[in-house]
Amino acid sequence: MIEVVILAAGEGKRMNSSAPKVLQPVGGQPMLCHLTETARSLGPDAIHVVVGAGGDQVEAALAEEACRFAVQSERLGTGHAALQALPQIDPEARVLILPGDMPLIRADTLKHLLDSPAELALLSFLAEDPTGYGRVLRDESGQVCAIREHKDASEAERAVGEVNSGVICARAADWTDWLARVGADNAQGEYYLTDCIALAVADGRSVEAVVAADADELLGANDRAQLAQLEAIFQQRARRSLMAAGVTLLAPETVQIRGVVECGRDVVLDAQVTLEGQVRLGEGVTIGQGCVVRDSELAPGSRLEPYCVVEGVRSTGPCSVGPFARLRPGTQLAAGVKIGNFVEVKKARFAAGAKASHLSYVGDAQVGERANLGAGTITCNYDGANKHHTEIGADAFIGSNSALVAPVSIGAEATIGAGSVIGKDAPAAQLTLTRSRQRSIADWQRPRKKS
Amino acid sequence: MIEVVILAAGEGKRMNSSAPKVLQPVGGQPMLCHLTETARSLGPDAIHVVVGAGGDQVEAALAEEACRFAVQSERLGTGHAALQALPQIDPEARVLILPGDMPLIRADTLKHLLDSPAELALLSFLAEDPTGYGRVLRDESGQVCAIREHKDASEAERAVGEVNSGVICARAADWTDWLARVGADNAQGEYYLTDCIALAVADGRSVEAVVAADADELLGANDRAQLAQLEAIFQQRARRSLMAAGVTLLAPETVQIRGVVECGRDVVLDAQVTLEGQVRLGEGVTIGQGCVVRDSELAPGSRLEPYCVVEGVRSTGPCSVGPFARLRPGTQLAAGVKIGNFVEVKKARFAAGAKASHLSYVGDAQVGERANLGAGTITCNYDGANKHHTEIGADAFIGSNSALVAPVSIGAEATIGAGSVIGKDAPAAQLTLTRSRQRSIADWQRPRKKS
Amino acid sequence: MIEVVILAAGEGKRMNSSAPKVLQPVGGQPMLCHLTETARSLGPDAIHVVVGAGGDQVEAALAEEACRFAVQSERLGTGHAALQALPQIDPEARVLILPGDMPLIRADTLKHLLDSPAELALLSFLAEDPTGYGRVLRDESGQVCAIREHKDASEAERAVGEVNSGVICARAADWTDWLARVGADNAQGEYYLTDCIALAVADGRSVEAVVAADADELLGANDRAQLAQLEAIFQQRARRSLMAAGVTLLAPETVQIRGVVECGRDVVLDAQVTLEGQVRLGEGVTIGQGCVVRDSELAPGSRLEPYCVVEGVRSTGPCSVGPFARLRPGTQLAAGVKIGNFVEVKKARFAAGAKASHLSYVGDAQVGERANLGAGTITCNYDGANKHHTEIGADAFIGSNSALVAPVSIGAEATIGAGSVIGKDAPAAQLTLTRSRQRSIADWQRPRKKS
Repeated sequence: MIEVVILAAGEGKRMNSSAPKVLQPVGGQPMLCHLTETARSLGPDAIHVVVGAGGDQVEAALAEEACRFAVQSERLGTGHAALQALPQIDPEARVLILPGDMPLIRADTLKHLLDSPAELALLSFLAEDPTGYGRVLRDESGQVCAIREHKDASEAERAVGEVNSGVICARAADWTDWLARVGADNAQGEYYLTDCIALAVADGRSVEAVVAADADELLGANDRAQLAQLEAIFQQRARRSLMAAGVTLLAPETVQIRGVVECGRDVVLDAQVTLEGQVRLGEGVTIGQGCVVRDSELAPGSRLEPYCVVEGVRSTGPCSVGPFARLRPGTQLAAGVKIGNFVEVKKARFAAGAKASHLSYVGDAQVGERANLGAGTITCNYDGANKHHTEIGADAFIGSNSALVAPVSIGAEATIGAGSVIGKDAPAAQLTLTRSRQRSIADWQRPRKKS
Repeated sequence: MIEVVILAAGEGKRMNSSAPKVLQPVGGQPMLCHLTETARSLGPDAIHVVVGAGGDQVEAALAEEACRFAVQSERLGTGHAALQALPQIDPEARVLILPGDMPLIRADTLKHLLDSPAELALLSFLAEDPTGYGRVLRDESGQVCAIREHKDASEAERAVGEVNSGVICARAADWTDWLARVGADNAQGEYYLTDCIALAVADGRSVEAVVAADADELLGANDRAQLAQLEAIFQQRARRSLMAAGVTLLAPETVQIRGVVECGRDVVLDAQVTLEGQVRLGEGVTIGQGCVVRDSELAPGSRLEPYCVVEGVRSTGPCSVGPFARLRPGTQLAAGVKIGNFVEVKKARFAAGAKASHLSYVGDAQVGERANLGAGTITCNYDGANKHHTEIGADAFIGSNSALVAPVSIGAEATIGAGSVIGKDAPAAQLTLTRSRQRSIADWQRPRKKS
Repeated sequence: MIEVVILAAGEGKRMNSSAPKVLQPVGGQPMLCHLTETARSLGPDAIHVVVGAGGDQVEAALAEEACRFAVQSERLGTGHAALQALPQIDPEARVLILPGDMPLIRADTLKHLLDSPAELALLSFLAEDPTGYGRVLRDESGQVCAIREHKDASEAERAVGEVNSGVICARAADWTDWLARVGADNAQGEYYLTDCIALAVADGRSVEAVVAADADELLGANDRAQLAQLEAIFQQRARRSLMAAGVTLLAPETVQIRGVVECGRDVVLDAQVTLEGQVRLGEGVTIGQGCVVRDSELAPGSRLEPYCVVEGVRSTGPCSVGPFARLRPGTQLAAGVKIGNFVEVKKARFAAGAKASHLSYVGDAQVGERANLGAGTITCNYDGANKHHTEIGADAFIGSNSALVAPVSIGAEATIGAGSVIGKDAPAAQLTLTRSRQRSIADWQRPRKKS
């Protein structure tokens, strides 16, 4: 039985933010959410989150996660923080304690720690520059005997490169026992979780420090420069993972991945592409420079030209979009659809081969197969109070600069004359238009520039 | 009394440019302007700029700065350059001489130099690779005794890592005296400013080399690759400074800061954002991917979606803009305003809650509270000779694809039918439109593809 | 007499692609094409490409290159691959063999190798980490005696930093002789080209390893991470070359160069610019942030504002484009032309001083000098079956939201009223329009929100 406690009460003053530190984003979501996701993958009986100031924001951010919350109302150290969660934990459970600002830690690393048979197991790592970290002190046989905080360490102890990560695991009943005995007579006047290690050693309990293979996983962030460093590592991981899956990143260092991205082989992501949320790209999909794609699914062979902003879109066949297209939620595109430049689509289905190539707004509409919407076509879906639907039949041809005043239906093979305002249904296979006579005024004088 | 002399006569042939070297940009402004700005912050009695070829361009670039110019018509070295400025300087003034291509130097570093009690004080730094620099030679007591140019240096002297930056300070009368005695019998046949140091030492004057803490500040640029290096350092500084102020940079290495940027806490700058000129962003403002914001002020909580190009804009309350919006000078947006995609705004005020969501051009206009401009609305502000104003009342609703032919006024709560051309004022609370009857032609034949 | 053999039969499984490895792109074209281009510059009598699986794709990619192909139907090693090309090569020709995934190699480096008087000359380099490479073993006199593959090397041999690049040159008849004697009794059961070296040494033939000055040139790519590394080196080269030519790259690390780019002095490329294909930019051209320019030529002084997507365009004088303009093939712009935001142009000529500043589509058209197309102007060039031409005379003024239904001609100095649909020619110097009477409906009730 395992329960996880995430220490998320830190204010993070150096972030200079109105949000608690653990809610600062990495890879498009709060640091804390990476941790709950990773913790969840371990299959724990419960995840406890210890919150402090700004606890409401933290609880709101985790609203859809099944977490239990404990409140640390006074800031009395990590030991004190962990203590707030213990009353709601089964005494026999193994309790894995995680700092809330360690978003890059991998489940495998935690599993490796949980595999330790020791009664108290902690995760350590070899720091290039250990300054500021607690050193892991070992006796001649290599057994951990204590954690020495940097400021309390002797010159010899400071030379130790193995340091404490803050990730630690022991039985709940033991935590309760040790934390009751931990004092606060130190410079900060706080109760330190790490002081439990010396107690465990003194009690003759087995203690193991498991050395993490990749120190990057254990980085935390106390200010936004460190946050940027975490983001850089996160992005590098995500880009490498896509490349390994057979995705071409033409300029990898400019691509941002924020969310869960599944790509088929030979997907091409050009420079400055950003993928957010749940994104699925079929084999051979090409995403042009600067596109932002959020929560969308594109069928194999689909192609976004540069600078498309796309959200909540589903293509069911290879289609072509952009450049400069804006597709909003509810857009569905079948095979062979073409959406061109300066076109906005919202809650609209385009059947196979339908086209809107230029300067159009198509909202709350169904566009039939092979229908062609001319430049400047606008579905007038909003009357100032309600939204209405537009139906365009297969093979319809809408002349340029036409306004289709919804609710309205354009029949199959209908043609709409350029510049028309269509407020009544247009019959199939006929030409429908609104048009005034063209006239010229011979003696007309152009306006003159006023001085 | 302090006067500053900036040596800006260098041609910079390796820049391969029609502009003088000191006008090459770093952080969005000429290198020289960074220096005059920094020099100005020291409160000098005068700033003198020594110009050479391309002097007119330099003077033009500094037109709004109160600088005095001296011309070096022959290229006879740094000593000769400084000499051109001396006749117009008070003999008792301390004269701080700066190379014109050192844009990153900080005022504090210069103040530190000016604090030196020495009669001649120069700024030195520890170079990782001192090749090419003049070495600072010191005697056993650590006193500076000479500057040895790289090519004249012995093997032992070349091992010295402390080098001359070119920034140097002494009394004007001393400069006049020393420069009169400096010769030009060297490889280049030039008069070197640094030769004054040996003269000062020989005269028994006090000489101090103040070692700069940060060698990066003293970098110059002789070619565009070095210019790019200065730019990189400048940008890194600017990004770190924003992060310290509580700004989230989601991909810091892609953000460009060119100008004076003030940001409230929790401002978010997404990837590829560029801020230019005077930019003020209130707390919590979000700037989406790829936006270019110049000389604008956005109220707290305002949000730019990706790819907005914004200049000379002022928002007075939280508003929402883009994606793909283009706001030009004179745009004012009140709280709750929404400007959507493919919309251009110029010299127009949007009152609270007004909207132009799609494919519109709004210029020379006033838009009332909660007024809604449909897709494709165009204010026809130009008659080919003059610009005219459009007034849209509160709660007006402009149907899609309408043209409002200015000067024209749309009353409060007026509705304009879709596709109308409104050339006369539209009364309040009425429906106004221009519209032809919709008709269908049953026996119409579609055009056929010509072979 | 020189013939070149490029080994392009590798599958590149680790690329995880449906395309053969040599077709993965670097700098916008397949790796293989860089090699054929470089090889071509040596003036060889023939270029032979040995293809394997996916050979059709390779042949298609080289369709416009005069290459000869040989097929390696079984994967039996580099020696076996080279052997497939030999029957079609003159026995007296010197044969330069190149790996197909080495796109960065320079012609000068190959020339240096070809200058070797040795009967067998190979290109080696000093690897920072030689792990995995074949070591170049030399005797006391410095003569090459063998290539030892990594797995066969002793500890001492592994300490050798000079490694084999895979580029190698000898007479065709010698290759035929050696390859006939090379065995396949090794771990992989393959015939290795490098085994020829030991045979040549044993035969007493002269063998030279020419050490390449720049190891980066000899990098290959077996997976997409390595491909990204090649791309980074390629881009750095291209950016530096532009900077040396006097181009300002405001954020060099964000600029992508893919193709052949010629720039005049003082061209400015802002952040995130991508240049593709054949691009010529005259002196002082400014390309704004995020622009994508392909196969285009811009006259000196032209200016693209941010986010233009431009292909197949020619400007003959300084003109101004964007932001957010989309210029398609066949666009020609004379001096003083202005194309503004949300404007698409295709197969259209704009004469001097003509303007289309906002929200327009201009296709298959000729626009006269100083003609002004208002916002929302659309040339209706497509009737659903055929494309037609629009002619707009000099000094014409097209009112906003007008549709010009091609084929149609607008006379010089003609004015078109806003919102018109012009289907018949408009006479010169007159006002032409289609317009209905504006009317207001006093007792009109606005729609109400349905609950």
